[in-house]
Amino acid sequence: MATYALGLDFGSDSVRSLLVDTQSGQEIATHVVNYPRWEKGMYCQPARSQFRQHPLDYLESTVEVIQSLWPKAPSDAASNIIGLSIDTTGSTPIAIDETGQALALKPEFAENPNAMFILWKDHTGIGEAAELTKAAKDSATNYIQYEGGIYSSEWYWAKALHAMRQDAEVAKNVYMWVEHCDWLPAILTGTQKPSDLRLGRCAAGHKMMWHESWGGFPPNDFFTSVDPVLNGLVERLPLETFPSDQSVGGLTNEWADKLGLPAGIPIGFGAFDCHMGAVAAAVKPGVLTKVMGTSTCDITVASAEQIGDKCVPGICGQVDGSVLPGMVGLEAGQSAFGDLYAWYKRLVNGPANQIIQNNAFLSDEQKNALLAEVDEQTLIHLSEKAALLSPGQSGVVAVDWVNGRRTPDADQSLSCAIAGMKMGTDAAAIFRALVEASAYGAKAIIDRFKQEKIEINSVVAIGGISKKSDLVMQICADIWNCPIEVLESDQSCALGAAIFAAKIGGAFPDIASAQAVMASKVCKTYQPIQTNAELYRQLYEEYLSLGAYVEENK
Amino acid sequence: MATYALGLDFGSDSVRSLLVDTQSGQEIATHVVNYPRWEKGMYCQPARSQFRQHPLDYLESTVEVIQSLWPKAPSDAASNIIGLSIDTTGSTPIAIDETGQALALKPEFAENPNAMFILWKDHTGIGEAAELTKAAKDSATNYIQYEGGIYSSEWYWAKALHAMRQDAEVAKNVYMWVEHCDWLPAILTGTQKPSDLRLGRCAAGHKMMWHESWGGFPPNDFFTSVDPVLNGLVERLPLETFPSDQSVGGLTNEWADKLGLPAGIPIGFGAFDCHMGAVAAAVKPGVLTKVMGTSTCDITVASAEQIGDKCVPGICGQVDGSVLPGMVGLEAGQSAFGDLYAWYKRLVNGPANQIIQNNAFLSDEQKNALLAEVDEQTLIHLSEKAALLSPGQSGVVAVDWVNGRRTPDADQSLSCAIAGMKMGTDAAAIFRALVEASAYGAKAIIDRFKQEKIEINSVVAIGGISKKSDLVMQICADIWNCPIEVLESDQSCALGAAIFAAKIGGAFPDIASAQAVMASKVCKTYQPIQTNAELYRQLYEEYLSLGAYVEENK
Repeated sequence: MATYALGLDFGSDSVRSLLVDTQSGQEIATHVVNYPRWEKGMYCQPARSQFRQHPLDYLESTVEVIQSLWPKAPSDAASNIIGLSIDTTGSTPIAIDETGQALALKPEFAENPNAMFILWKDHTGIGEAAELTKAAKDSATNYIQYEGGIYSSEWYWAKALHAMRQDAEVAKNVYMWVEHCDWLPAILTGTQKPSDLRLGRCAAGHKMMWHESWGGFPPNDFFTSVDPVLNGLVERLPLETFPSDQSVGGLTNEWADKLGLPAGIPIGFGAFDCHMGAVAAAVKPGVLTKVMGTSTCDITVASAEQIGDKCVPGICGQVDGSVLPGMVGLEAGQSAFGDLYAWYKRLVNGPANQIIQNNAFLSDEQKNALLAEVDEQTLIHLSEKAALLSPGQSGVVAVDWVNGRRTPDADQSLSCAIAGMKMGTDAAAIFRALVEASAYGAKAIIDRFKQEKIEINSVVAIGGISKKSDLVMQICADIWNCPIEVLESDQSCALGAAIFAAKIGGAFPDIASAQAVMASKVCKTYQPIQTNAELYRQLYEEYLSLGAYVEENK
Repeated sequence: MATYALGLDFGSDSVRSLLVDTQSGQEIATHVVNYPRWEKGMYCQPARSQFRQHPLDYLESTVEVIQSLWPKAPSDAASNIIGLSIDTTGSTPIAIDETGQALALKPEFAENPNAMFILWKDHTGIGEAAELTKAAKDSATNYIQYEGGIYSSEWYWAKALHAMRQDAEVAKNVYMWVEHCDWLPAILTGTQKPSDLRLGRCAAGHKMMWHESWGGFPPNDFFTSVDPVLNGLVERLPLETFPSDQSVGGLTNEWADKLGLPAGIPIGFGAFDCHMGAVAAAVKPGVLTKVMGTSTCDITVASAEQIGDKCVPGICGQVDGSVLPGMVGLEAGQSAFGDLYAWYKRLVNGPANQIIQNNAFLSDEQKNALLAEVDEQTLIHLSEKAALLSPGQSGVVAVDWVNGRRTPDADQSLSCAIAGMKMGTDAAAIFRALVEASAYGAKAIIDRFKQEKIEINSVVAIGGISKKSDLVMQICADIWNCPIEVLESDQSCALGAAIFAAKIGGAFPDIASAQAVMASKVCKTYQPIQTNAELYRQLYEEYLSLGAYVEENK
């Protein structure tokens, strides 16, 4: 009899469910649901990098994305599901009160963005991140040494501190801040009170300053020295954290009913999307898995021996068991990848879109169809023209930090710059320079790993862009000067979650045997073109030089 | 009985004729003709900054632009015209053979861009300009000391040298290179052979290394030391040059017939457009006149006493009598002004234009109307949105050298750069930064004059942009921190030519009395807003800093 594992992948814009047959490894059914409030732009202020998500967006879409599987799956599927694991974006924390309720789920906070999930890409806490970095460096123990040595505004404590400073009502009512990847498993397993909350290793180790060597989290004093508003928060967090191959608990009857799942099935410890994606990509030492979406999340692993007592500076952390049990997971990433192209598309199309909308002689139907066409065709058109250029031909160089820089060396106050434009420079030449910039940004990460003797010999690319754009992928292969394997699965993160679900459900004794059956195949390999690689090796100096200007003038 | 003066203004894209009543100063009739071959993009390669104009474009459009006046003018106008003067772009030289024929007018060179006029904005001679600059600096006499100390690729000798190196046939057949503003008066007055050619002071002094102190031009040895291909050229140029308040000669019968003008009327010495525009703007010491079109040409004047033996570095030259007789004319300018905005418009609209053109459901008529609307509305739309931003608000900073830098300190190898872009940056924010950059570029020129004790207390703005864009003009007033008067006349350069034509035709004893009747009024004044001026004084440092990056990394 078939058994099934269910993975849920909460991305930036939508949640995806994936049902996998644990015996064949076959992907049986999948569904995607956009977050309804988010889709309308609610609670966000992009101009000041404020991005919030309402907990109801997650709860409602969880129900819809699972219930929508059943019509697509065999009739016995739901009842033969043996486990459910989730991955989420992160760091994406929310304030809960002393009863465990997320503040935004209480009527008085229902419309308050500070009481909602603070999405990974929210950079409102830049100042707070700098204060935390300084405090850690000034402290006897550097509590961010395993998180790259620079605390980011994209992370838990900076977000908590910023929101509490901004909003006295939130500060007064918050009992604890909880990551999305810990919050949903707690909900599904019916955690009664905050003191029963169990934490996954991934978020705690990479974003929350948890480390075994100092027995859990930094002391309360450390946080109150930054701001007394943080007093007590850390003392309410449990000291133990768990890798994702273990179960938080069983699905409650209430949620089993809502979701159409068997009650009591094990729910795994949550982790960040790319960490689970890396598991679906069978990450191993020497290989960097790179989830290439709006931003990138880059994961590799190393054995404890290889790492020794080394702290890799400027990355998003190195955490034992955050990816695979028994290995140190190393995380890095770029704050904007696809987002850089999408930003440029919006930018160039802004005026024409407005003019089309205001036009007097086209019907509304014609306008909408045309606007959709412009939206759909722009990057295709730009890619076609950009592909005709050779490396360095246009003379245009760009730096990719339009959304700040996550790694190497987090600094969200950095920005995008473009230089070398002449009268003959067109939109496609700049687009190519932006693509090159995004690949240079990735190269800087690979170079950092290599400097620290963490070998990177090849890249496995995961996510939308890796299957959508030959131009981007070939430029990446040329600039990184290494082969790139593109993962076949369109839903690697969800697949990674399903692999963990299969293990906690008992279908496999460990993750390695689950991967042997369920991990994704490679569908395409890009090899570097050596003449281009050599040109880009030289042109990279221009990127570094423009980057140095941006850093000096931020 | 009324008498009329006729001015012709040869711009980059078109020629304009202007008929003025010399007694009332009234502008009676005007007409504009686009150059037909240029309009089709013939002989140009924008991607490598090659811009050439066929002499037939000038000859044919001269006939059309004058003949088109007659239906618009009183019936006695043509027969009562007392003089004709012209201004042109420059430096815009062409090769002529030993019979005085422009090479491109000979069948064997009819399609050869190297045998055509090399338009001011052609930058193919960047290398040659650097060689000439070096040779002048190494020479016992610095022959470019009165041309700002840096020889530009936009100028006569760099263009001649580049074309002759590129094209052996041109090198073999050229007898002399002649500026457009000298060539057309020679044609109209029936100059029989090159040795009879008479040169205007303006082009010779500002672009051709002519100066009284070394008795005309540098010696032949100077040029052959740079390249033997130049041997003999300079020896064929006349040593004397003339200001524009004098006449080259009388209109030939043949041209009088072609143009519908009285034979024998005096034709003035030609000069560059902005020099004559400054005369229509009643330029005087302390006032900078600025022709603000695709590029800018900035003119001021100073008395010989004020200048003394000073050589202002990095401008386009200081020439006695090049603007007004008896005063030293000082020229500077920006290689791109309106061109910067037009470039940006083309850039952002490139993808949408292509997608509209490829669209399947709109009719050709709808497409063309929509494309025209997009073209027309884009800068209006961007200006409206940019006007909502305050100085520095967006954080975006740009450098304006998309077409190189003319002054201060000519360097056509420089390029445009934009920095400080974040996810919330839209097309309007970048547009505002580009407008600010163009105003900063102008400020750098004003600052250079001031450093050299050439006072600039106010600016008179001439040309399209000064009447078209409140946004641009207010930002300029704020950044320059001085009042800007906008000239009423829409055709100041042609009006300046008409003022000279009235003087050589005998309607006035000198230019000052002609100006008293004919010079243009001011139609609007922009005053700096002090809070903005203060902000921009600080933000200007960012422009300088990005500019320094561009210079270091060119």
